[in-house]
Amino acid sequence: MRATLIYGAGDVRVENVPDPTLREPTDAVVRVLRSCICGSDLWPYGGSRPASAEGRRIGHEFLGVVEEIGKDVSGLRAGDVVVAPFVWADNTCDFCLEGLQTSCRHGGGWGSPGVDGGQGEAVRVPQAQGTLVKLPVGEDSALLPSLLTLSDVFPTGHHCAVTAGVSQRTTVTVIGDGAVGLSAVLAAKRLGAERIILMGRHKDRTDLGREFGATDVVAERGEEGITKVKELTGGDGTHTVLECVGLEDAITTALGVVRAGGTISRVGAPQYPSIPADFGVFMRNVTITGGVAPARAYIEELLPDILEGRIQPGKVFDRTVSLDEVPAGYQAMAGREALKVLIKN
Amino acid sequence: MRATLIYGAGDVRVENVPDPTLREPTDAVVRVLRSCICGSDLWPYGGSRPASAEGRRIGHEFLGVVEEIGKDVSGLRAGDVVVAPFVWADNTCDFCLEGLQTSCRHGGGWGSPGVDGGQGEAVRVPQAQGTLVKLPVGEDSALLPSLLTLSDVFPTGHHCAVTAGVSQRTTVTVIGDGAVGLSAVLAAKRLGAERIILMGRHKDRTDLGREFGATDVVAERGEEGITKVKELTGGDGTHTVLECVGLEDAITTALGVVRAGGTISRVGAPQYPSIPADFGVFMRNVTITGGVAPARAYIEELLPDILEGRIQPGKVFDRTVSLDEVPAGYQAMAGREALKVLIKN
Repeated sequence: MRATLIYGAGDVRVENVPDPTLREPTDAVVRVLRSCICGSDLWPYGGSRPASAEGRRIGHEFLGVVEEIGKDVSGLRAGDVVVAPFVWADNTCDFCLEGLQTSCRHGGGWGSPGVDGGQGEAVRVPQAQGTLVKLPVGEDSALLPSLLTLSDVFPTGHHCAVTAGVSQRTTVTVIGDGAVGLSAVLAAKRLGAERIILMGRHKDRTDLGREFGATDVVAERGEEGITKVKELTGGDGTHTVLECVGLEDAITTALGVVRAGGTISRVGAPQYPSIPADFGVFMRNVTITGGVAPARAYIEELLPDILEGRIQPGKVFDRTVSLDEVPAGYQAMAGREALKVLIKN
Repeated sequence: MRATLIYGAGDVRVENVPDPTLREPTDAVVRVLRSCICGSDLWPYGGSRPASAEGRRIGHEFLGVVEEIGKDVSGLRAGDVVVAPFVWADNTCDFCLEGLQTSCRHGGGWGSPGVDGGQGEAVRVPQAQGTLVKLPVGEDSALLPSLLTLSDVFPTGHHCAVTAGVSQRTTVTVIGDGAVGLSAVLAAKRLGAERIILMGRHKDRTDLGREFGATDVVAERGEEGITKVKELTGGDGTHTVLECVGLEDAITTALGVVRAGGTISRVGAPQYPSIPADFGVFMRNVTITGGVAPARAYIEELLPDILEGRIQPGKVFDRTVSLDEVPAGYQAMAGREALKVLIKN
């Protein structure tokens, strides 16, 4: 089959690899219908990892059709359309039962050694029964893009909003107008927030943010941005801050715009070593939470809103490529020409 | 009257100062019965602030008898025995109503310019109606030491346990065997925790910790201490970590012993500029919460347990001095000869 490999900075190739087969009785093989490129794929694409002479499989967001099932997997049948969260998990260990499938005792990541990546024609899915969620749609459903977001980007925004404690009673600042930030806006709106300030400076993106529920947009950054959010909130800042970037500036801004007693949730994979949570932060009782999103924990909850058309998180995809065009997709996202790239097999 | 002033590092004096009088209709004057020295008083005693030629009033934990009441204060009468939380607050603003009296819009700190400190014969109490809590005891009650802990140290331990989410279902690590750490042990036990690991290396203190509810004591520090706590918890660490020290080592240890998905609450006033919450912490979904404790929010809840003898937080006092002996009290605490010093007027 064809699959995507990353060799180093800026070097992504679609190549022939062995077809996946069942290895463990808990495996399934899924033929991929749709996958996509994640903002976090851009870190190795930018050179965050050493180059690899053999290449590494990449991609962790996909949905597809079950083709083969190991003998220990129940509840799934060949032909089922399924979505996979961005880590696989048994969904039965103590962490999974607590809703923290990202810390599953028998889980792991797509593209890790011996495991397929999502940006390919097919995937061997370990712990298939715990990992895959059946979608009641056909292979040609118009909902596939929105359903694909259940594998990562929308549950990541949702995790951010949930852990921050967003509700009808809380004001919200979302930092970042990337696909995660916009998903966090949509998630905050869905959880009842009535005041959602989106910090971002790309008008096409913040326009989608407004469509998703943002009531205010602040284009300014740094101290200027903090001042603007404070002006919008009577000097106090917001009860919750959804940090969807992962850069030091973003966490510093988050600490500046959070109200005393408030909560910052960070889902942008942090590219900084420490949080400048000093004595002033301590005196204001600011909570810092969040982390990598256990997407699996949220899929069943979020699915009906997509199936019934109440939300369309798939609007974050603004470009579609074929599998062979994946390298161009990376270029487009890295160059900020595309917000998020859908891969249609 | 006589009151305590701090002039600089190691320089605490008890001197004559003007008697407090009502200045605002919201004031009361309280004659102090008991006060005490806080671990945080040792920071300026150690030289954390520039020296002051005129001296600064100090002390923020006291209980006493109401002597005079401003005309806008209701619910209090001369002769009432009352306790004051370690910041004063109106108890009616939005922050107070949320239980965050430390961020009161009309509050402030004892010993700030124009405001008396607690280590003296009497105190003018601003916002007296919101600040003071009446205690149903006489001036000679044997409960006074435990009741005095309601002004700071016990609610601080309680705030730590509450914000960390301690319950019967959570395992707990308490970092620090000072008066706050021991109070946190007592608070965690009171909230139902069944497994409380106390990290401390002063046997007399950890013995009191065991009496307060610690099930395990880990004397090792740093990496060794982290290893020990992990051994005690099947390799996972504990669901909640109560950081009651405030030094960089302590927060690093906290990050090492917290279970994935767990919460660190910090109530030790941080003497470090940032929390080393890197990518690994992010991947484990660790929450960092806590801050300066809104003692006022908790007094009514904690009071019955003291009055009815179920808990004796006053056991943290292991030395009693008179007001004139306060400088010796500072020396004893700074030299770790005393855990916490009670001042009896």
